[in-house]
Amino acid sequence: MQDRSIQEKFMRIALEEAKRAFDEGEVPVGALIELDGAIVASAHNIRERDGDPTAHAEIVAIKEAAGILSKGDFSKCNLYVTLEPCLMCAGAALQARIKKVFFGARDPRAGACRSLYRVLEDKRLPWRCEVEGGILAADCKKILDNFFLMLRNRRRDGRAVEGGRLEID
Amino acid sequence: MQDRSIQEKFMRIALEEAKRAFDEGEVPVGALIELDGAIVASAHNIRERDGDPTAHAEIVAIKEAAGILSKGDFSKCNLYVTLEPCLMCAGAALQARIKKVFFGARDPRAGACRSLYRVLEDKRLPWRCEVEGGILAADCKKILDNFFLMLRNRRRDGRAVEGGRLEID
Repeated sequence: MQDRSIQEKFMRIALEEAKRAFDEGEVPVGALIELDGAIVASAHNIRERDGDPTAHAEIVAIKEAAGILSKGDFSKCNLYVTLEPCLMCAGAALQARIKKVFFGARDPRAGACRSLYRVLEDKRLPWRCEVEGGILAADCKKILDNFFLMLRNRRRDGRAVEGGRLEID
Repeated sequence: MQDRSIQEKFMRIALEEAKRAFDEGEVPVGALIELDGAIVASAHNIRERDGDPTAHAEIVAIKEAAGILSKGDFSKCNLYVTLEPCLMCAGAALQARIKKVFFGARDPRAGACRSLYRVLEDKRLPWRCEVEGGILAADCKKILDNFFLMLRNRRRDGRAVEGGRLEID
């Protein structure tokens, strides 16, 4: 499937962003904005670094792309993100009027596109986004699992957790 | 009612922010973050100015407060906003772990705290915010109605709409 291989190509790049987050002690989620096969912006979660609860990968990528796109027009842009967006980030995709959201792993705890809500497809809202999950889901989940395992091990060993405000339960 | 008069005092300040948005040609919504009776940050919608779909009043105020609050701790902070938060902004309040959200007018089209969703009180989510609507609701609605009436009149008269990307239907 040509389409799937293209989607996986972009998700692999989002995964590279997630790895950067991991290396910086952030919950490893990466995202990018794609337009006509080109990457407009890519970003990772920098919530701890910036002490900014809105600095999820998707929001950072949308803000960066907004400064680049002509007239802030996201209507032909796709968002790739390694983890199912939360309410804030799904809401941001709607506000930006992004065409389609591709995500990797599901987030059963806070996911707003499939797991807890399906807000991107809510016909009552003024805008909608297409959505497709499960792109390289195993890889996207694995890096998160590894991160939280590392945190648990560090806590068990009594070592300080970088950033200090991450929660794992 | 002492409590109500305090809430109205803060909402009046959020309304001042909404008026600044109006004067700048932005959809007039204002917000502030309050902690122990002091204003940590206040902001208005700057979406058109910045060409940034995430630059709603609430997000701008939360980001500003995050840089001020010790350890980014919003747990004793309240958010005041003149319009019922959308999914993105309600999601941001949850991410910030804000104590309570006070809003003015309802947003029947996109409100995520009462009108279309009640996400702040969703027990499935890892965090919740208290919520109370209807604070100076008539004043908060009036400034929005006036703004959209002005836009319609300008369009009817064939005059350019400042910013050029506002939608009114």
